[in-house]
Amino acid sequence: MGYEDVIATISGADQAVLAEAQARVDVLLKPPGSLGRLEEMAVRLAGMTGRVRNQFERRCVVVMAADNGVYAQGVASAPQEFTRLQAVNMTRGICGVSVLTEQAGGDVVVVDIGIAQPTGWPQIVERTVRRSTRDLAVEPALTRAETIEAIEVGIDVTTGLIDQGYQLIGTGEMGIANTTSTSACAVVLTGVEIERAVGRGAGLSDEGLAHKVEVVRQALALHQVDPSDPLDVLSKVGGLDIAGLVGCYLAAASRRVPILIDGVISILAALLAQRLAPAAVDFMIATHRSEEPAYAAISAELGLAPFLDLKMRLGEGTGCALAFPIVDAACAMMNRMGTFDDIQYDQSFLVDNREDA
Amino acid sequence: MGYEDVIATISGADQAVLAEAQARVDVLLKPPGSLGRLEEMAVRLAGMTGRVRNQFERRCVVVMAADNGVYAQGVASAPQEFTRLQAVNMTRGICGVSVLTEQAGGDVVVVDIGIAQPTGWPQIVERTVRRSTRDLAVEPALTRAETIEAIEVGIDVTTGLIDQGYQLIGTGEMGIANTTSTSACAVVLTGVEIERAVGRGAGLSDEGLAHKVEVVRQALALHQVDPSDPLDVLSKVGGLDIAGLVGCYLAAASRRVPILIDGVISILAALLAQRLAPAAVDFMIATHRSEEPAYAAISAELGLAPFLDLKMRLGEGTGCALAFPIVDAACAMMNRMGTFDDIQYDQSFLVDNREDA
Repeated sequence: MGYEDVIATISGADQAVLAEAQARVDVLLKPPGSLGRLEEMAVRLAGMTGRVRNQFERRCVVVMAADNGVYAQGVASAPQEFTRLQAVNMTRGICGVSVLTEQAGGDVVVVDIGIAQPTGWPQIVERTVRRSTRDLAVEPALTRAETIEAIEVGIDVTTGLIDQGYQLIGTGEMGIANTTSTSACAVVLTGVEIERAVGRGAGLSDEGLAHKVEVVRQALALHQVDPSDPLDVLSKVGGLDIAGLVGCYLAAASRRVPILIDGVISILAALLAQRLAPAAVDFMIATHRSEEPAYAAISAELGLAPFLDLKMRLGEGTGCALAFPIVDAACAMMNRMGTFDDIQYDQSFLVDNREDA
Repeated sequence: MGYEDVIATISGADQAVLAEAQARVDVLLKPPGSLGRLEEMAVRLAGMTGRVRNQFERRCVVVMAADNGVYAQGVASAPQEFTRLQAVNMTRGICGVSVLTEQAGGDVVVVDIGIAQPTGWPQIVERTVRRSTRDLAVEPALTRAETIEAIEVGIDVTTGLIDQGYQLIGTGEMGIANTTSTSACAVVLTGVEIERAVGRGAGLSDEGLAHKVEVVRQALALHQVDPSDPLDVLSKVGGLDIAGLVGCYLAAASRRVPILIDGVISILAALLAQRLAPAAVDFMIATHRSEEPAYAAISAELGLAPFLDLKMRLGEGTGCALAFPIVDAACAMMNRMGTFDDIQYDQSFLVDNREDA
């Protein structure tokens, strides 16, 4: 489906079900609000699916894998071939995201949306828009048509997974140099200073970090990026992995399926999706606080706060995999805790002193 | 076993196994340090058990339930009978800790170490030291002998659970007014200001909070508590639930079994255990950042940082239940991720820029 048609189908959380879910949470056998953001998550999930009680047995992490032309500028510590190598390794069950997703009872789906060299690996979903972006330091990374095509790949893949029965989607990526494109987009979209948006990625030295800052600065000076046009941002200084993830968020929101945000690349894509379809944010759940510096600015802009603080900076979707059991816990709380009615106890002694109460 | 004999058996993490575990984590298929505190947890677990690879199939949360004489001062929002009521409900599977622990594949063990009225409920482990503490606002809460007895109940119960095959222990508590005793102990042990150590508990009003601050202030003025003597702190301004949990930490450390810290009461007990046996801290894992204000001061003093930020303040052991799957994830990472050797790739391009590297 065309991305504009998908956007047209997106509406926000079901307010009636949100209220019903909140009412149930407030009579559970505990002081109101005392399970904090676990309660908030359970209520938000209800607003997404339209059901007060949820259980998400089938879950997966979608990994968008793509290369970035800006690799030529020496902004990454790892060789470019690592994108292809790790995309393959993810399907072999030996990467971080593979192990952690399996541990949480989920599947990993790896999509080649723009790896520089063909993987030749049948377990990878081949949806290559082009083999690597162009070098954003010297020209736009993508044409507008390529950008739209990549978004629509994300939509197609995610819609297909939902049709197969997946009820909870995690987002991941693999792409050497993709924190460079992410930082450039973050500066444009949030107005954060370049120095506060550029990090070490997989492991740059101090010198490498200073160089990466300069590359982003020059790229932003070269392109006159229109911050009010998400497609302009994506095509000039974004990447195919990011664009694909934008499509994942749009499709999940369209189908009213909860979708988890991973690290800095994933949350940048979430912000772009929100700019295209503001109500899409109602279907997103932030998971872990990435160590990449742009994460905080983007998450504040999006208005979604993570709940895991593990100082992780691997990406791949690892934060989503760790968050699956916390989503399960929120559902268990809603579905299985008793109420004050169940124990026939008048709860009027309870003072509800939440700030928003 | 006597608590002093148990303390004598406690030694810290196995340094050789720690080094071996760190060496394995550093060759896993990811940039060094990129899984952050998940790596740190996996390494620490190895130092506890003496095995690089771990898997903790049998886990439980031990809930120490007791009443507090200071309830008479009007420091709690809930009726005192809630201690007994919720202790029973926990064994019926309808409380927060019951549901979340079951969800994580664990069992809840509720110990009556000092509930004001007998529960008469066979599923509760009856190890009552005395029926409620005395009112710490007017006299010492416990005698020194009662305090030691309560610690030894915690040791006995935890040792018994380990003998039954439990490999991973969570800590929880139930006791109306127990944040008052906890705050008083925290002020003595950490030197934090009273206003910054006293919170709303299950849900006090502004007026109730101000009164609770005054009660703690007067109690500390009344008792000349010796901050260098954990038993003096516990007996004068502590509680039976806290003392029982101190015993849990000591027993787990003695048997080299990892033990999870829940909220503010649980971490206060952890600090007391560390003061009695400094090496015991090597076996403790902080889980969630409690909303109770004393938590931060105690966790800083203990040198253990939580990784879940869910704005929870229920206690019961709910934070431990949520952390079980994260412990599982750390083990899965260590046990099942591939290495650079596995894929026959020279990892020397990787820059290790961790602060401690």
